[in-house]
Amino acid sequence: MKATASQSLHERLSLGPWSPPHLRPVLHIVGRMLLALATAMLLPAIADLAADNPDWRAFLLGSGVTFACAAALTYLTRCKLSGGLTLRQAFVLTPLAWTAIALFGALPLYISDYAQLRDNFTNAFFESMSGLTTTGSTVIVGLDAAPPGILLWRALLQWLGGIGIVGVAIAILPALGVGGMQLFRTESSDRSEKVMPRVREIATAIGLVYLGLTVMCGVLYWLAGMTPFEALVHGLTTLSTGGFSTSDSSMGNFGPAAQWVGTVFMLAGGIPFVLYVRIVRRERDILRNTQVQAYLGFLLAMSLGLAAWLALSGRYGVEEALRLAAFNVVSVVTTTGFATTDYSLWGNAAIGIFFGLTFVGGCTGSTSGGIKIFRFEVMVTVLRSYLRQLIYPKGVFRRMYAGRLLPEDVVASVVVFFAFFFACYSAVTILLMALDLDFLTSASAAVTALANVGPGLGPTIGPAGNFATIPDAAKWVLAFGMLLGRLELFTVLVLFFPQFWRG
Amino acid sequence: MKATASQSLHERLSLGPWSPPHLRPVLHIVGRMLLALATAMLLPAIADLAADNPDWRAFLLGSGVTFACAAALTYLTRCKLSGGLTLRQAFVLTPLAWTAIALFGALPLYISDYAQLRDNFTNAFFESMSGLTTTGSTVIVGLDAAPPGILLWRALLQWLGGIGIVGVAIAILPALGVGGMQLFRTESSDRSEKVMPRVREIATAIGLVYLGLTVMCGVLYWLAGMTPFEALVHGLTTLSTGGFSTSDSSMGNFGPAAQWVGTVFMLAGGIPFVLYVRIVRRERDILRNTQVQAYLGFLLAMSLGLAAWLALSGRYGVEEALRLAAFNVVSVVTTTGFATTDYSLWGNAAIGIFFGLTFVGGCTGSTSGGIKIFRFEVMVTVLRSYLRQLIYPKGVFRRMYAGRLLPEDVVASVVVFFAFFFACYSAVTILLMALDLDFLTSASAAVTALANVGPGLGPTIGPAGNFATIPDAAKWVLAFGMLLGRLELFTVLVLFFPQFWRG
Repeated sequence: MKATASQSLHERLSLGPWSPPHLRPVLHIVGRMLLALATAMLLPAIADLAADNPDWRAFLLGSGVTFACAAALTYLTRCKLSGGLTLRQAFVLTPLAWTAIALFGALPLYISDYAQLRDNFTNAFFESMSGLTTTGSTVIVGLDAAPPGILLWRALLQWLGGIGIVGVAIAILPALGVGGMQLFRTESSDRSEKVMPRVREIATAIGLVYLGLTVMCGVLYWLAGMTPFEALVHGLTTLSTGGFSTSDSSMGNFGPAAQWVGTVFMLAGGIPFVLYVRIVRRERDILRNTQVQAYLGFLLAMSLGLAAWLALSGRYGVEEALRLAAFNVVSVVTTTGFATTDYSLWGNAAIGIFFGLTFVGGCTGSTSGGIKIFRFEVMVTVLRSYLRQLIYPKGVFRRMYAGRLLPEDVVASVVVFFAFFFACYSAVTILLMALDLDFLTSASAAVTALANVGPGLGPTIGPAGNFATIPDAAKWVLAFGMLLGRLELFTVLVLFFPQFWRG
Repeated sequence: MKATASQSLHERLSLGPWSPPHLRPVLHIVGRMLLALATAMLLPAIADLAADNPDWRAFLLGSGVTFACAAALTYLTRCKLSGGLTLRQAFVLTPLAWTAIALFGALPLYISDYAQLRDNFTNAFFESMSGLTTTGSTVIVGLDAAPPGILLWRALLQWLGGIGIVGVAIAILPALGVGGMQLFRTESSDRSEKVMPRVREIATAIGLVYLGLTVMCGVLYWLAGMTPFEALVHGLTTLSTGGFSTSDSSMGNFGPAAQWVGTVFMLAGGIPFVLYVRIVRRERDILRNTQVQAYLGFLLAMSLGLAAWLALSGRYGVEEALRLAAFNVVSVVTTTGFATTDYSLWGNAAIGIFFGLTFVGGCTGSTSGGIKIFRFEVMVTVLRSYLRQLIYPKGVFRRMYAGRLLPEDVVASVVVFFAFFFACYSAVTILLMALDLDFLTSASAAVTALANVGPGLGPTIGPAGNFATIPDAAKWVLAFGMLLGRLELFTVLVLFFPQFWRG
């Protein structure tokens, strides 16, 4: 129970974690992020001005307040960032940045004229956190009549949250060694005390890919019959696997062509973005390819199986069965959460399958949430080697992944992640039930938040419902669950561990 | 992916697992167990004869058929058992014995005159497997009017299953290294190729303790107002943490005194039986004491918390609140499954809490099922050390349990057990939903079967309901779930692994 060999880290933090010099670079980065957020808020202000909606004032004011706070913070904590961050600083940065952005992101919603969010900080924060974590659960009823500023801001939060988590998954999580992500340590990440060197170069390439795919998606949506504004909003929320829409009936509001476009680009959002860069550069990446193959194979098998059942049971014709099955399976597995139809009406078997799919998630380093494909692959490897070990107790078994030996710490990390994903899921479910939500609502809300999917199951929060009517306390629990799931549990949980703060 | 150093085991099984000499000792032991079962069937025959119920013929015939089959099997496979079993033979023995006993145990129910079981093999087998695995889920409606033979046979199956699992947990599981049970390897077990040496001596002592506590429990039930027959049946099903009753209203049919007796002896059934032997012999056993302390502490905290809430919410007076809380918490955590009242009427918070409690289970080496307390203790240790490692990546942390270093293979085993308990739970839930059961019924039936508790939640299978009306296919899924949970998952799962049979 004794720490050794980490003295250098100790000594650097010997003044205690709360003394300003140590949090200074962390707060400085948060300040810079908030400056970017303040700038982004001008876009919905413009949209509302163009539509002659009075909310442009709320976004302008929100932008001003955010800019002022961010500028003050950045100035007060000014320092050189060239030295990078210590491990502990990186741990504090991630949840702190996410929380700060969600809080300031809620500000224009809270001061807007929109009745469902105005003066209701719980709703505004829930919507903002649901956006930033690309979850897509909403408290708004009547999206079709909502002002453009609000709709655009929700979509922008998802888009920013999407590229943000890709950055975290590439630059921070592998270095922290959270949930087996150390497997994806590359030239862009290194578990030394200096986190995030050379990030900029790769970040730029990924940013361009993200932007390019978003534009492509938006244009195709527009060609498929959406208005330019709808195409913009859905483009932003498709690539980010967020799932906010401009309509209460989600993608069910649009035609088959738009739904197929959605399926393809949600799928694209669940693939590691660094892989696109690799493909452009003609580099091989067996590690990520292995995961993507499993991901595509799983989606194909599930979609075809469900489509066959929907067609054979006589519910739909072949094209419709294929489209609805593919769209909804891809939407849930990539944790986007768009809906085309209320699949809970397909019977208990469908509810059970979609409930199970909610846990899965896409690939690591993508915008999707959930447990993620590579962890399932590692678990299968673990089960196989464990069963072998039971049969041959004296045997020595190597666990392989993508043709490489799987390091012990990755295996341990993945298995612990799995176990604690279910532990967190149980805890959130029981908390929600204690707030007097029924079992199906609680259990599906817990996993939809932790996996950043969006809609739950059952009449209240199912694909046809929303989160408006659940108690305020439950909204806070779920907002925390979204953050927890988005940052891969341990990045948040470690902050609740007293030893983290003792130094 | 290569086995090394297990050649000796290989060579001994080189003729292939299905060639008679290898399964011969396994089948011989199963034969002997069935001989004992045939003898036990005479007891309900006597009970029915005394009550002038025609079912005595069914039990006599069942006993005869079982005896004939068992005698033939024992004779045909006669061999010396002094050599012990190989690891692989022990793996085959456990699920094979359990399945064979459940099948033959179902025989008298199937050929009885009792309308709900007669000529309905699904119901008869479900009831028999539920008994033998000490689960306690029932398909019988109208227990109060059921003939004494049936009631006694169900109770006897639980009692035999209870002592059986204690034996397996002491002699077999630690040697197989299943789910971290290797931690409990003692002088009575040894992971060499010869399993089960010196078992007899300790088995006898534990058998005596089990019998003594059962008699004590029965007498106290009788003093608390039960008829001698009711006291006998409930004595058999309390110590075995089985939970079959003589009444549809379970222990709600009896007074407060009987309920307190039940609470104490269910509690006793959830404690490792070897610990009683140690206490009598005045030996120290820190390993098991640590687990029992956590077990008692957890039960006390949960009972007092629930009682306080029940009393403060004005639902019950103090004594009744304390009695109902303690009884139901102990009943679910020890996986007994007796009910005094329909706690699902206490609201969603109570449903959530009892749903969570269904997973927990008692101590290892007791008659209770579930995940078990020591695995939760190990998981807490793992989480702590994992979080420490995240903070101090270069640190070296030792995981301690009961003052001893926790071996790596135990940790891995426990963590894998946890993950696959949830995986099995999800799979069973989705299977049940595919059979068109609703979500609450499916999810609670899955865990109540895997954890061998008994009642589920919701109107159909809740504390006030039973399993009579669910589809036949669901009964088979649940019966398999009971077996899977009872034998700690991997003892069964390993048989589905092709490599196990390839040798």
